[in-house]
Amino acid sequence: MSTPFRTLALIGKYQSPDVAESVLSIARFLRDRGLAVLIEQGTASSIGGAHDFPVASYEHIGASADLAVVIGGDGTMLHTARRLIEHGVPLVGVNLGRLGFLTDIARCSATERLAEILDGAFTAEDRFMLDVEVLRGGARVFHTLALNDVVVNKGELGRMIEFELSIDDEFVYTQRSDGMIVSTPTGSTAYALSANGPILHPSVGGIALVPLCPHALTARPITLPDSCRIDIALLPPHDARVHFDGQTRFDLRAGDCVRMTRSSRSLRLLHPQGYSYFAMLRQKLHWSAAPRV
Amino acid sequence: MSTPFRTLALIGKYQSPDVAESVLSIARFLRDRGLAVLIEQGTASSIGGAHDFPVASYEHIGASADLAVVIGGDGTMLHTARRLIEHGVPLVGVNLGRLGFLTDIARCSATERLAEILDGAFTAEDRFMLDVEVLRGGARVFHTLALNDVVVNKGELGRMIEFELSIDDEFVYTQRSDGMIVSTPTGSTAYALSANGPILHPSVGGIALVPLCPHALTARPITLPDSCRIDIALLPPHDARVHFDGQTRFDLRAGDCVRMTRSSRSLRLLHPQGYSYFAMLRQKLHWSAAPRV
Amino acid sequence: MSTPFRTLALIGKYQSPDVAESVLSIARFLRDRGLAVLIEQGTASSIGGAHDFPVASYEHIGASADLAVVIGGDGTMLHTARRLIEHGVPLVGVNLGRLGFLTDIARCSATERLAEILDGAFTAEDRFMLDVEVLRGGARVFHTLALNDVVVNKGELGRMIEFELSIDDEFVYTQRSDGMIVSTPTGSTAYALSANGPILHPSVGGIALVPLCPHALTARPITLPDSCRIDIALLPPHDARVHFDGQTRFDLRAGDCVRMTRSSRSLRLLHPQGYSYFAMLRQKLHWSAAPRV
Amino acid sequence: MSTPFRTLALIGKYQSPDVAESVLSIARFLRDRGLAVLIEQGTASSIGGAHDFPVASYEHIGASADLAVVIGGDGTMLHTARRLIEHGVPLVGVNLGRLGFLTDIARCSATERLAEILDGAFTAEDRFMLDVEVLRGGARVFHTLALNDVVVNKGELGRMIEFELSIDDEFVYTQRSDGMIVSTPTGSTAYALSANGPILHPSVGGIALVPLCPHALTARPITLPDSCRIDIALLPPHDARVHFDGQTRFDLRAGDCVRMTRSSRSLRLLHPQGYSYFAMLRQKLHWSAAPRV
Repeated sequence: MSTPFRTLALIGKYQSPDVAESVLSIARFLRDRGLAVLIEQGTASSIGGAHDFPVASYEHIGASADLAVVIGGDGTMLHTARRLIEHGVPLVGVNLGRLGFLTDIARCSATERLAEILDGAFTAEDRFMLDVEVLRGGARVFHTLALNDVVVNKGELGRMIEFELSIDDEFVYTQRSDGMIVSTPTGSTAYALSANGPILHPSVGGIALVPLCPHALTARPITLPDSCRIDIALLPPHDARVHFDGQTRFDLRAGDCVRMTRSSRSLRLLHPQGYSYFAMLRQKLHWSAAPRV
Repeated sequence: MSTPFRTLALIGKYQSPDVAESVLSIARFLRDRGLAVLIEQGTASSIGGAHDFPVASYEHIGASADLAVVIGGDGTMLHTARRLIEHGVPLVGVNLGRLGFLTDIARCSATERLAEILDGAFTAEDRFMLDVEVLRGGARVFHTLALNDVVVNKGELGRMIEFELSIDDEFVYTQRSDGMIVSTPTGSTAYALSANGPILHPSVGGIALVPLCPHALTARPITLPDSCRIDIALLPPHDARVHFDGQTRFDLRAGDCVRMTRSSRSLRLLHPQGYSYFAMLRQKLHWSAAPRV
Repeated sequence: MSTPFRTLALIGKYQSPDVAESVLSIARFLRDRGLAVLIEQGTASSIGGAHDFPVASYEHIGASADLAVVIGGDGTMLHTARRLIEHGVPLVGVNLGRLGFLTDIARCSATERLAEILDGAFTAEDRFMLDVEVLRGGARVFHTLALNDVVVNKGELGRMIEFELSIDDEFVYTQRSDGMIVSTPTGSTAYALSANGPILHPSVGGIALVPLCPHALTARPITLPDSCRIDIALLPPHDARVHFDGQTRFDLRAGDCVRMTRSSRSLRLLHPQGYSYFAMLRQKLHWSAAPRV
Repeated sequence: MSTPFRTLALIGKYQSPDVAESVLSIARFLRDRGLAVLIEQGTASSIGGAHDFPVASYEHIGASADLAVVIGGDGTMLHTARRLIEHGVPLVGVNLGRLGFLTDIARCSATERLAEILDGAFTAEDRFMLDVEVLRGGARVFHTLALNDVVVNKGELGRMIEFELSIDDEFVYTQRSDGMIVSTPTGSTAYALSANGPILHPSVGGIALVPLCPHALTARPITLPDSCRIDIALLPPHDARVHFDGQTRFDLRAGDCVRMTRSSRSLRLLHPQGYSYFAMLRQKLHWSAAPRV
């Protein structure tokens, strides 16, 4: 396999003291291999100016880069995914601390793993995102994408909310609860898991609905095909918010409808050779842990 | 839509006192519409001989019938599915008691609903089954199909078992537990649900693995793509059994491997017009139930 | 048993259109039996002035009433309990809608049941409350009581919080989660139940700790003896709130400690004859409900 | 505190290759301190005859020993508890492998910890046991004690069972399930925990009922006061078994009633100084484990 990578972008976790050194050492490593290197604008501001690499906006990166190397944690990957998804730039994740679900290259071996990837020795994996819009009186008042999850949640007052769930225009149920997590397979190992949601393997074409503290004891998580359109319509008089990947949020009003579909674009993740989803799960979820003798 | 149905088979729940009248009244109704009617052998034995309808084996039904009407409950549907799946005969279910997940026509309106279906007014839905074999020393010692679930469970001694899970030849984990439920979307509302498994919509191409009382607190249900091959290999020295749709079982020995894949054939269910999976869930799972004021 | 009741107070749900008629008809019924009747101040404001019953503050009621009849739902009972607990006035609950966990007399039979209670035909049951204080820099900045639960929860930003749990001055663990429910047996069938907490029979001397969406998969609800002191100390930099019976709240700062003990006073509930905790559970939790055929 | 210990019994795990050396080295250590040492009969058979310590039956130990040192794992403690409870001999547990919930002294420091205990530096803790009888046609056909749990479970056929639960002669519900765990606080961290039961601190006077795969989605674990009498009556036609501490079992017939009360005798455990229930939970349940970044 010949190398398709000529221009690489580096995106680092903002306001993180130890990211500068990692970003710059990876940048030098890549330049030494004869590649064009761009440092993302916010990353550049965060790490300060003691370097001569060109600085680029997400738009510029989207238009020019063949690969984006994300240096940080899963949160940085989530943020980058939403910024670059429309440009189809693949991502590879380098973790500064413990390995993440999405950042599966350890910093200590980052240059070796990147060298292999640049030589074509990698596994590519596509992850779908949720396309989300908030409709108010039929008009779109907000739009975004989410790689992990969309969480409709009780708002400032902290009171239980009530909403109507419809799938492909069919009424499913009215629920009173603290809220609802709508999760992709990627998000199924994140917040949804802590709410007793099911793990979905990344190649399952499903979207999980996981209720948060539902009033009715018979409420259960349900996995829907990713071809469906999910509407959550907030009933009066409660206040609620919708959160996207735990990073941005939008305040809802009674009557608002949060509409979710699978985005037409997928995020491409590159994994180093030998990557195994199950090995990652074993490590992250401590599947060797045993509570009793 | 023109009627594709010429020969119908009737299959009733065995040893059920009130099934005879239902089978015969439906049989007469169908004959009156000019259709050929076959009564399944065991059903015929069960209801006694006071009729002149031809009696047929499952093989004969498989070769000749365009549709099988199953009169009983979900258990009768599960049994029939395993007998007729290889012949591709579609099924329609008439429930003698409360509506089931699979038998969605009430007895009181059975002839009206069947008339509509014969007139072409129906929804067809394909459900996949699991193809299961038990390997001992590499050789197949048992083979069957399951529409709901395959349950590897502790055996006679009632002691926790230990087994190794592999997916597509990759080791996933070793688990100590009471057992493991491997469930299709169809089975996800049956036994798996009572073990806190996730509901899978029938059009999700997934297979759910739901541990039974796992020793490790970090064990969680996981949904895999239905394209994968699932191996559960029993470790010594424990005894265990494997159950299929809660109807048949096979005693395992240490070292045995239960191998599961999606069957290449699907079961076709015909639903009356207006059938809704979500409406069925609402009714069966009491989703309007509310525990608090 | 001779009647120990001479003065009764009536407390109705505020801002509820149909409460006025119920309050006044019960008031008249009690006066006709020769009892002194007080109507609580806020209740009196809420129902308007077309009556000649004396109006009294909670303090006055606490000092003079032998029994308070609460007309509304469980929420009204929770509020009244916190206002009257220090005075030791027993409560009896009349429900305006569906029976509650605490309001176990139906409006339609309220006068019959009250007559029986006044004749001494009742069951008395003591429920303990939690005494809660918030400590900031060692000083108490807030104090209240709760009959159901104390919920330390993520605040306005909606981000996971982190806190340290100590029992009787012994460190137990640091937890990252959406929050923690600390529930009495009375509260174990309320919010805690929707978070998969255990039901505690009212005569169990235990306090349940139920984590909300804990980050660690090994977190589990734990029931502690009601003799212990529970400290939840909020770690920086997260914002959080603490809610009491879902009715009042207090904004926490990093470093604040929420300290909970069993209150030295108990709430006395009077139930009509034939009251059964298990019958109430069966009815409220739909324990006859069955999801499968 | 003066030493109340003059005669000590040693009980080792049977059929365990490495137990002999531990038993004998502890026996010599105790004899060197001038104490009388008894080795339990079955333990003696298991470790072979190369020693000159007196061998004693459980009855003899019960009558003469001031303390029994149990060398093995939690299973050995459970077995010993049932044999010695009626004699009131306190137990101390030495673990041969990983620390257990009940065997909290590590083998490597066993003599130091025992020396401290003999010097009076220990914490004593009382744990209650369940007294269980099986009634058939009103007559007792089986009787035993359990320290962890009583599990009524489906039997050989592997079919769901149905039973009636009564508390203090009051009907609570009819349940269809795989079975029911009735657990003491001691057992709440054992099998019951793997079935999503609540952890009960040892000083909570409660008994937890934890359903196994209940048919009804509204079934929930419930904790009852330890003063109550719990009856589980098996309904026809299903077969079932009842298991005690996972060690012995009894085959039930339809109509049999399993009756459980708190035993009038308690088991006394001695813990080394510095023992902490919460520290043990943290270690055994991996409460520092964190699944996500």
